[in-house]
Amino acid sequence: MNIYEEALKLHKKYRGKLEINVKVPCDTNEDLALAYTPGVGAVCLEIEKDKENAYIYTNKGNTIGVISDGSAVLGLGNIGAQAALPVMEGKALLMKKFANLDAIPLCINTNDVEEIISMCKLLEPNLAGINLEDISAPRCIEIERRLIQEMNIPVFHDDQHGTAIVVLATLINCLKLINKKPKECKVVISGTGAAGNSTIRMLYNYGFTNIYAFDRNGLLSNKKLDKYDKYKKELLNYVNLDNKEYNSLKEGLVKADIFIGVSAKGLVDIDMVKSMNEKNVVLALANPEPEISYDDAKKAGAFIVGTGRSDRPNQVNNLLAFPGLLRGVLNARATKITEEMKIASSIAIASLINEEELNTDYVIASPLDKRVVERVSKAVEEVAL
Amino acid sequence: MNIYEEALKLHKKYRGKLEINVKVPCDTNEDLALAYTPGVGAVCLEIEKDKENAYIYTNKGNTIGVISDGSAVLGLGNIGAQAALPVMEGKALLMKKFANLDAIPLCINTNDVEEIISMCKLLEPNLAGINLEDISAPRCIEIERRLIQEMNIPVFHDDQHGTAIVVLATLINCLKLINKKPKECKVVISGTGAAGNSTIRMLYNYGFTNIYAFDRNGLLSNKKLDKYDKYKKELLNYVNLDNKEYNSLKEGLVKADIFIGVSAKGLVDIDMVKSMNEKNVVLALANPEPEISYDDAKKAGAFIVGTGRSDRPNQVNNLLAFPGLLRGVLNARATKITEEMKIASSIAIASLINEEELNTDYVIASPLDKRVVERVSKAVEEVAL
Repeated sequence: MNIYEEALKLHKKYRGKLEINVKVPCDTNEDLALAYTPGVGAVCLEIEKDKENAYIYTNKGNTIGVISDGSAVLGLGNIGAQAALPVMEGKALLMKKFANLDAIPLCINTNDVEEIISMCKLLEPNLAGINLEDISAPRCIEIERRLIQEMNIPVFHDDQHGTAIVVLATLINCLKLINKKPKECKVVISGTGAAGNSTIRMLYNYGFTNIYAFDRNGLLSNKKLDKYDKYKKELLNYVNLDNKEYNSLKEGLVKADIFIGVSAKGLVDIDMVKSMNEKNVVLALANPEPEISYDDAKKAGAFIVGTGRSDRPNQVNNLLAFPGLLRGVLNARATKITEEMKIASSIAIASLINEEELNTDYVIASPLDKRVVERVSKAVEEVAL
Repeated sequence: MNIYEEALKLHKKYRGKLEINVKVPCDTNEDLALAYTPGVGAVCLEIEKDKENAYIYTNKGNTIGVISDGSAVLGLGNIGAQAALPVMEGKALLMKKFANLDAIPLCINTNDVEEIISMCKLLEPNLAGINLEDISAPRCIEIERRLIQEMNIPVFHDDQHGTAIVVLATLINCLKLINKKPKECKVVISGTGAAGNSTIRMLYNYGFTNIYAFDRNGLLSNKKLDKYDKYKKELLNYVNLDNKEYNSLKEGLVKADIFIGVSAKGLVDIDMVKSMNEKNVVLALANPEPEISYDDAKKAGAFIVGTGRSDRPNQVNNLLAFPGLLRGVLNARATKITEEMKIASSIAIASLINEEELNTDYVIASPLDKRVVERVSKAVEEVAL
């Protein structure tokens, strides 16, 4: 029996992965008189007086809405809201298991930006935060920005920032091994979707100022403005600042120090890795099949290789970021998630590996490392407070 | 310490009443590979092939959305979505505790009928059913009707039908004690809001054809059409079929067999009860203070008295209806809740009291009676299948 058959069997046996649990006594008439009518009336009135009291008397303060339209799910693409539900249940499972967050899967039956935004806003009374998930770019960026502006609770799009945070964490440790400063590195990124977009910004804000990005039209460049939406145009403030004219990813990778793939499998071959600088870093993160496999990249002489896979060293997994970050944000009652909080998360994740442990096959901690969530949440809380 | 202080303390201690629970193993990398990526991909694809598979592989099939805009909460009125959350958490608690339903409180930050309808429809992928709650009339009726038409999952408005089902259950047993048939009874109803509207219809459909209803404008009558919205106009098909002209509730109650109050406290006095037929039934259900107290009604010589209170006999509590009804509907995978299912629920609830037990102070079972949910759910399943 393979993993897919086992997964189907598991989901069928339990009928999904989540359930609602009652956390107060409710066996007697007296219990019900406190938890429900008439006692609950007093609780309602306290919240009517001051909505903030919902954080004291209800589960709102620990509740995350995991919201998706199913338009960009895992490696599966646009499978629709209903088919995305098992992934959102899985995401909620991770939030509970790793950070004791109560997350509600909310798959929305529309791809319309305005409808998604409107729905999130209508649901604000129930939620302490929103985690957008598997919504296709560039709509995901617009939705996130609008919600950040228009809502009073923190909004996070994990596909953008989760990946970016863990990439930066990985690179912070890589820099120690290759002995370079961020501004000394030539960075090449393949993919400018949700993950690429946020990664570019975070790396730039951390000090990587020599970044080149590639999309389906090749190198991101001021000469192709007519091909770009407004989000891609914004990226030109962070990439290709010296107006290079690489004709291909292959050309771009020559003498590069760092390659980051958030695009599609097989886009990088052995010769391309060989053309990079000597102590190079290859983070091939396309899922489940990377731009170049760990084994091929190593064969090509790559110094440090990371992928999204759990069966190879250096798994760059956003599970390292989102549970702790959201836990910290909720603990601090922050209403926005700032770039500073994200960078603090990266530094906290990187700090899990000390100087003695650090080596080319251990630049990023395991997602199952039990110290992760507390380390990240504390770092985020410190920034927030 | 009184009940309201204790309720506040309880809610503060637990920070609300619900939490999300993970029901599958998720401790090892292998567990996560089945519950989340990559295994979950196979589950998504099964549901993409056929959306019905969501009932097999996710928790959708056991999930109820408890949806409110907070416009008509308990005895508190229009306190808004945020302040309504403790009640919706309480409702979800009851659904879990009594019928093992996983209910999600969803308080919606709008009173706009179209926005509420649109939101419910967008959330359909996550839900097996919708329970509307504490939405003011007549909007609640319009919302429920539209959702029943436009959604593929069952929609129930407990404030309308929950009360109606339990009133009918109570009357079924009362008829045995007063030895009359439905059509022989003169029934007077005070209140034509959510509960009154559905009660009138259900009683009529069960065979009570001699009903008079009173609202703020007095007796419902064909002569007042200019004062009525379309829902109240519809009620004229069920009430006052012989075009009486009672000038007040007091006049209407003369020689009545049955009084049902779903209106406001104090509307009925001792003299009014005395003017009713001899073996009469007084169900004074305004909450928390009835139209006339149990004690006063008894003092006036009422034969059978029921109220919404747990500290007196014959508590007419919709907790007797909704858990079992929704459990049955979900078990049967019914897509609509029919009048037949509601009447079957009433008969099932009434059947919990046998001939020997039945007496004027025991015409309706306790909401904590452990047999209720199974009895009701089986009756509903039988009708559905």
